[in-house]
Parts: sequence; structure tokens; C-alpha cells
Amino acid sequence: MPRVTLKIGLFGCGTVGGGVFDLLHSPARRLQFRSAGVEALVSKICVQNVAKDRQLQHFSAAETSFTSSYSDILEDASINCVVELMGGVDDAKDVVFGAIRAGKHVITANKALVANFMPEIVQLLAQHPHVRFGYEAAVAGGIPIIHTLQGAYDSDRITEIAGIMNGTTNYMLSKMEAEGVAYDAVLKEAQDLGFAEANPSADVDGYDVQSKIAILAKLGFGGVVKPADIPTVGISRISAADFEYAKMMDSTIKLLGVAKLLKPADEKTGAPQEVTVYVSPVVVKHSNVIASITGATNLVNVRSDNLDSSAYVGPGAGRFPTANSVMNDIIQLARGDAPLDPFKTSVPVTLQPDYEAHFYVRITITDGLGVIRHVGQLAEESGVSIYSILQAPIVDRANVQFVVTTETSLLSKVRAMCQKIAALPFVQEEPLYLPIM
Amino acid sequence: MPRVTLKIGLFGCGTVGGGVFDLLHSPARRLQFRSAGVEALVSKICVQNVAKDRQLQHFSAAETSFTSSYSDILEDASINCVVELMGGVDDAKDVVFGAIRAGKHVITANKALVANFMPEIVQLLAQHPHVRFGYEAAVAGGIPIIHTLQGAYDSDRITEIAGIMNGTTNYMLSKMEAEGVAYDAVLKEAQDLGFAEANPSADVDGYDVQSKIAILAKLGFGGVVKPADIPTVGISRISAADFEYAKMMDSTIKLLGVAKLLKPADEKTGAPQEVTVYVSPVVVKHSNVIASITGATNLVNVRSDNLDSSAYVGPGAGRFPTANSVMNDIIQLARGDAPLDPFKTSVPVTLQPDYEAHFYVRITITDGLGVIRHVGQLAEESGVSIYSILQAPIVDRANVQFVVTTETSLLSKVRAMCQKIAALPFVQEEPLYLPIM
Repeated sequence: MPRVTLKIGLFGCGTVGGGVFDLLHSPARRLQFRSAGVEALVSKICVQNVAKDRQLQHFSAAETSFTSSYSDILEDASINCVVELMGGVDDAKDVVFGAIRAGKHVITANKALVANFMPEIVQLLAQHPHVRFGYEAAVAGGIPIIHTLQGAYDSDRITEIAGIMNGTTNYMLSKMEAEGVAYDAVLKEAQDLGFAEANPSADVDGYDVQSKIAILAKLGFGGVVKPADIPTVGISRISAADFEYAKMMDSTIKLLGVAKLLKPADEKTGAPQEVTVYVSPVVVKHSNVIASITGATNLVNVRSDNLDSSAYVGPGAGRFPTANSVMNDIIQLARGDAPLDPFKTSVPVTLQPDYEAHFYVRITITDGLGVIRHVGQLAEESGVSIYSILQAPIVDRANVQFVVTTETSLLSKVRAMCQKIAALPFVQEEPLYLPIM
Repeated sequence: MPRVTLKIGLFGCGTVGGGVFDLLHSPARRLQFRSAGVEALVSKICVQNVAKDRQLQHFSAAETSFTSSYSDILEDASINCVVELMGGVDDAKDVVFGAIRAGKHVITANKALVANFMPEIVQLLAQHPHVRFGYEAAVAGGIPIIHTLQGAYDSDRITEIAGIMNGTTNYMLSKMEAEGVAYDAVLKEAQDLGFAEANPSADVDGYDVQSKIAILAKLGFGGVVKPADIPTVGISRISAADFEYAKMMDSTIKLLGVAKLLKPADEKTGAPQEVTVYVSPVVVKHSNVIASITGATNLVNVRSDNLDSSAYVGPGAGRFPTANSVMNDIIQLARGDAPLDPFKTSVPVTLQPDYEAHFYVRITITDGLGVIRHVGQLAEESGVSIYSILQAPIVDRANVQFVVTTETSLLSKVRAMCQKIAALPFVQEEPLYLPIM
């Protein structure tokens, strides 16, 4: 694709949109961009309330106008690129699909839109081969993980992608580990500080990570994985006690999105590759670089045949990190370097909901004689081998927690074992089970 | 640039060259590449000894021939790309410069060549605007740091690049920390295992990192920095005792290449930006992600206005990691996506050899009364403020080591202080001084 002078229609002018505008329109950067052959300006901004002061530092009414009408941009033939930063799914979908149909390039930070409508977007792009589609900002904020997966693994084979991709929950887990704070207290604090939403479900229940790992799974393995099909466990059951037990294992707990190749495609039978994708808190050894990522920082770790292990670390959210990723898409597009196949070639994938790992199982009981014997028996019945049993000093005999770790076991077997354990009379709740990395 | 069908002349067919050949010629990948519009094959391989079996898995004499003559490739008009993996500087320079002059694209893993002849290469490329130049494999093995610095920071401002970019020394330092082994023992072990050369100077004296940080400094700040102008300290004076003291500081020691913006360009006076670049063992807090990188893994950490801190981690060397980076250059070139300005726009830079940091100063004495008073007096005379004094339990009174850490001080003042301390009668050797990150 040749270089292109971009006239941009920007949808949304909040934290990220305003950041993109100011980065793009700053006089110093415009000179730099021009000298590097990048020509791009925002000509219209679509917002609900055009009267509101957007506090843009580099705004000029001669160059840019505000509108509250989608069609003002979508039907403007002089605009050749739509940058969608309005969030939500329904209206954003109308805007993004409308833009592609109108032959406009699209850049979006909308992970839910990209993850949930990937087949439709891929199909629409195939019908409009001149349209380029950028979504670097949709996953892991400022980390250039989309461009990297698009360009750095073409002669490699990815076997696993695992990432800390939600800053809010990583902040909360880091705080729980460092200060021994309870989940409810740290959630309240994160809400007070504005890191967590009043309704924190998208973060703490793992849905945000679910969208992101669905996108990375497509880039890693070629197959569309529906977010709704991804087994997703959030952090709301993680307690201060879990960090104590993790510490005994020289480990910590991180909420990860994981996409893993279980079995490559079979050339003889034609059976497609088998991949497992899940979101779960994971027990991670302190020696693993993933454990060193604290606070709102994100990390994506990629395992592959050629590189073994490579990791990308950076800010997961925020005005300028996210705006920087949008800018990278804009510059790549203006230079004519945006990839033809932003989601890479489609390859069939069988999603396997079951996977093998060592598991951490925390069991809460009213003290009972023979507990270990009972648990051992149920493990044996379920086909799960126990690797170790950890017991912190008991403080309250009516409320005892202990941890069993398993040998490599199938998730389904561990789940079955936990359901049986939950039915024991002296067990207070269904055991918490987490994979160990 | 449009897509291009590459006929490659490969110089060198050792560990990395053979890896590139097999990745490129593997039948499965050729299908994949073709479906992604990438057409590239090696048509000639230049090696000293054409009779030697290169153990290539996917070699076909119908497609590829061996030669020992440079001109056989350089004068072959059908070859449009040279991949230089022969190493060394003199011959490699003839090959690379000859290829550019002949209008052939160049891909090289040769850090010393790129670092030492950057101005000449930039000038030559300007004279041959259709030639693309890839060097992803020259720095940090499999980490896509060159492409990332070329593409992910264009609307950002980089303020610091710091990296672990030598796997051999990082392996040695990790081993010294984990096992309390002495420097000489760990060097011998690394040599026995083939990780370190019989003449280990390029690694342990920091020259390898010197070339790499010179290249990254160009991409980060725009200015050419001559490797020979970079103050470079290796690891040969690091002892097991230094790791004990680092541990007291909840830190470890890493050999880093650092390039740091001291002062931005002054628009009013026209004064260029001031940058400091150095190679040195650095005391790094365990909480810093850099400290978590052990063994032969590399890391590059980039500080910038938009992203604050981002890090890239992966294998620093080896057949397939390095070959993968060469492949990424080949694929980018074949797709027509190779950047016009592989070294980015040139911007004037003043290299400032002095920089400020907290410093770690390890002093070795025959026990003497009033040592601390003397050292304190010399620090004061040198304009250096002491922040802390650390003293491990004394084992041998004739050979006592202790550590002074300083407040933020100029390197030049710390150096002057150390020279004065070295002149004290009870001091055994010039103190070791390392910046603290």
C-alpha cells in the first residue's frame, strides 16, 4: 500500500481520544511527522455533547470541527480514516462497520467490539480489500503486542500466550500480596482511587481479560475463539490466605489470560490444531518474570519454537499509553505499512475447554478428624494425584484452611474432585482451584 | 515500497546462517509464506570451504549453490538481497558496502559493523534510496527491539534505554548471585560449557554491549554515538562480596548498556540534546523487572514520556532466536514493509561522558583505625555526599571490604574520590564504583 494522507474522523474525545488529538496535533510532532512523510490530521470529532470543553491543547477550529452526528463523518467522502474511541459495543459497531463499508480505514481501541465481532470484521475487510484495520490499543494499552504478533513470529510457531492484561486486578493482587489486605478492602480502596469501577465486574470477574486473550489467541493460532466460550474465573475468591500459601510455594497469584497449543494440526488426518484458552488466577513462581509485574503494569509472555520465551511489558492503560498505541496505528497507516491481514491468516482451531496443569486447591473446613483421608480418597476416586499438602498454623479451629497441590491433572478431574469435596459435611464451601504455572 | 520477490545471497552458513536457511526453505513454511505473499529463497551461499557439509535439512542443489567467491554473489544481477552472517568486520564491510553499491538490499546480524560504520552506512543508503537495510538480529538476539524502536515510539519521546544485552555475562552474574561462586570459577565454567569464548574479553569487558547500546542510542535519540566514545566497564572486578552487599540493599548486579537523555534540545539557543551512554555493572533493586532476568536472557527497558516504562524480554543469542530476527527482516522486506529510514532521522546529539546517579563504592582495606573518617573526609573534599555505609561481618582483618553508597553524585566526582581513596596507605586497590539504578 502506498503512503496516504489521512483525514481522520475521530469518534469519542475523552481520556484517550483527547490524548490522540494532542499527540497528533502538537506543532513539534507535526514537523517531525511531516519530515518522516507522515501526513495525518483530525478533521472532525464526533461527541455526544459538542458544547463541552474538551481541553484540547492543540485545537484549531480552522482545521477541526465537532459534530454529534455519525453520518457527518461516515458520509464525508473527504474523510478516509475513522478512529473509534467511543467505547461500548452497539454504537461503536455501527460506526466501525459503517466506516469499513464506506471504504474508510479504521483504527479502534475497542477490545469488546474486536473480540466479539472478529468473524464479521474479517469478512467485511475481505469485501473491502483497500481498507486497513488497526487495533493496537485494544490489548494491553501501551505494549505494542498486536504489531509484534503480526510481524515477529511469522517464521516461528507460537505454543503459548499468557498475559497480565488487566491493570486494575493486578494492582489489587499486588496490594493484597504486599500488605496482606483482604479482597473487599483492596477493592474498596481501588474504587476510592478511581482504579476500579463502581461496578467492577468487567475487571474482577475477568471479562476484560477474556476479550483480550480472545484477540491474542487469533493472532497466535489463527482461529477465532468466541469470548463467551472461554472459561473465565475472576479474582473475587482470592483471599489473603491464598497469598500466604502461594508464598510457601515461593510463588504469587496473578490473573492471567492464557491461550495454549495442546496439539498441532495433524497433517495425515487433517484434524485441526487443539488449543485451550482460559482466564484464571494462576499461581506463578517468583522466579518467573510474570511474578515481577506489579501494580497496573501489563505483561504478555509468548512461548514459541524459535524464541522459547519472550515477554513484552508496559503500561496497560491510561491516556498516553493507549493514545500512543492509537498513534502507532495512525503512523503505520499513513506510511503505507499497515498489514493487509490484521488478524493473520485464518486457520481452523478446535477449542478444548479442558487442559492439564498442576493445580492449587484451597479447602475450607470446620476442623474434622480424618479430613486428609477423606480428601485423599476423593482425589483417588477422581483420578487426581496429590503432590503436596500445605497447612498454615491454625488460628480458628472452626474455620481451617489448607491447600492441596496436585500432580499434572486435567481441569475437569480437579473440578469433579472439588465438587465431591464440597459435599463433605465438614467442608464449608466449594474448594478454590487454580492452575499452577 | 511494493512487495518484492527476494533472491538471496547468503554470506556465512554457520549456526545462524544455517538456521535462517532451514527456516526459509522448510516446505511447510514456504507454503505459509507464499499464501501470505512472501516470496524469498536463498540462491547462493558464500562460505570459505564449499566442500564442508553444512547439515542443511532443506537444501536442494536445484535451487541453491555454494560459492567461496564474494563477487559470485555481489556481481550476480539476479540476486537482489544479501544476508550477511559471516561475522567479523573487515570482510563483512566489503560485502555489505559492496551489496549496497550494487543496489542490493542488505540484512545483517553484525553489531560491530553496524555500530562502527553507522555514518558511512547511513550515507551510502542515502545514495541508494531503493536499498533497504535490516539489522534486527544485531541487538538482543530474538527480541524484536530494532523494529519496535523503529515503529512504536514515533509520537513518544524516549528518555532512557537500558538493557541486559549480553547473555554470557548475565549467565555468569546470575550464577555468582545464586551460588556465591567467585568470578574466576564462574568464567571457567562458562568457558567449559561453551557459553564464553577462550578469549572472553568482548563479553566480560563489555565491548559486545558497547556496540549494541551504540545502535540503540541512535534509534532512541537520533544521534550517532561512536562505540569507542562510550565509557565501558566490564564485570571482571565483580566479586561474590559485591553480591552480598547488593543483597543487603535488596538488589542484584547486572551488566547494563545505558543510553539516557540528560537535557533535551534547547529550541531557543539551538543547543542539541545532551545524552549520556555507558556500559557498566549496575546495582539494580530486586523489585525492578531488570533484576528478574537471569541466565542468558536479554532485556531492553525503554523509558519514555507516553509509556513511562516498557520492557522487551527474550533470548539474547542462539541459532533460532537470531535466525528468527533475520527472518523477520526478510519477511518485512519481501512484503514491502521495510522502513525507508532504518536508523531513523538523524538529530544532533552531544555525548556527555559524565552523569549523575547514586553510586555503590566498594573499598578494600587492611584494617585501619579511622578509615571511615578518612573516607568521609575525601568524600567531602570531592563534593560527594555519603548516603550509607555497609559492612559485612569481618572474616580476615588484613583484607576488609566495606561499601559506601552515595547520594546523587556526578560520576566524575565519584571517580575523583575513589582515586584519592586509592592513595590512602591502608587501602589495597582502587575502589570499585558502580551506579545504582
